[in-house]
Amino acid sequence: MSFSPLLQQLITALRCLPGVGPKSAQRMALHLLERERESARHLANALHEAVEKIGECQICHTLSETPVCDICADDTRDKQVMCVLESPVDLIAIEQTGGFRGVYFVLKGHLSPIDGIGPDDLGIGHLLERVVSEGIKELILATNPNVEGEATAHFIAAQINDADVRVSRIAHGVPVGGELEFVDGGTLAHALAGRRTLQRDIK
Amino acid sequence: MSFSPLLQQLITALRCLPGVGPKSAQRMALHLLERERESARHLANALHEAVEKIGECQICHTLSETPVCDICADDTRDKQVMCVLESPVDLIAIEQTGGFRGVYFVLKGHLSPIDGIGPDDLGIGHLLERVVSEGIKELILATNPNVEGEATAHFIAAQINDADVRVSRIAHGVPVGGELEFVDGGTLAHALAGRRTLQRDIK
Ligand SMILES: [Zn+2]
Ligand SMILES: [Zn+2]
Repeated sequence: MSFSPLLQQLITALRCLPGVGPKSAQRMALHLLERERESARHLANALHEAVEKIGECQICHTLSETPVCDICADDTRDKQVMCVLESPVDLIAIEQTGGFRGVYFVLKGHLSPIDGIGPDDLGIGHLLERVVSEGIKELILATNPNVEGEATAHFIAAQINDADVRVSRIAHGVPVGGELEFVDGGTLAHALAGRRTLQRDIK
Repeated sequence: MSFSPLLQQLITALRCLPGVGPKSAQRMALHLLERERESARHLANALHEAVEKIGECQICHTLSETPVCDICADDTRDKQVMCVLESPVDLIAIEQTGGFRGVYFVLKGHLSPIDGIGPDDLGIGHLLERVVSEGIKELILATNPNVEGEATAHFIAAQINDADVRVSRIAHGVPVGGELEFVDGGTLAHALAGRRTLQRDIK
């Protein structure tokens, strides 16, 4: 005896959500069908719309419903200061501190040779192109404060050969080994303010 | 600064899942859009299909894609022994023990005067009707072993006035205050085997 085919299909599909194991997928499916059918219908539509209509910003690569996101389209932002992040969720976290008025570049991850993720997969070529073409004066590397994030930051720093571009790393106010997305706004604002210039590995 | 409208809509919609707060809804939405678009599309379809096509069995009220569920339609089951449950998930748990060959009645919850949930909302009238019309010899009350489940079991027991119907309650092998759905199969099988006849409150 097991669940009916459609119920089993729903339970399996819910497993794609991060942190959802077999037991919680089962609870979620039954909860929706027993008590939240209207919400389940709404969730199905929201998923469908999001997947079909949310793409990424051509300029900074964050998630965006328009070809150019609101931040890149905002003329009041300081376009000479660029903050490099691993994920759109980190962009939101930085924006919520209210302490940054520059622009962004979202890498979508970090270098991971073991998984075959190299500079091209992260769009580092496009990043370097923007640094030159937009006359960036400061590049703040705000990848995660863990081994992979540090390695990615140092790799990018090593590519910048223009002495007029200040390359900085957010200060270690953020907990080492943690993930930016879980850091509170105050710590994050502090880490941004205390950023330091990185020593160039390649001069 | 906040998320784009469609992304915000998805994050809000994910909150309908049990145990999902604002932070995990955000992580889920971004995870799906950044890395699991195909799975998200699949989940949208699974939700849609489940909501449209899964109804309930006319006889036992468990979730079913057909008017009569597989168990009620199975002629090899002992139709004179009926097990009363609070939820379809409990039915699956009992079936998985392999120790029960009778039929079921799913109440979908428990009596809760404070929430305005009375006997009619649980279909107790239909249950009593089945007890008579199907010549049930034993009614096993397997509502949750907590205060509400006990009250519901005693309410039902008090309605059965036919001395030929044995009314039993699953044994307290199940942890008091717990929920059936989280009990392991062995304990559940033991609890079923050790069921005792309930004293009648009304004779
Ligand atoms: Zn942008
Ligand atoms: Zn049935």
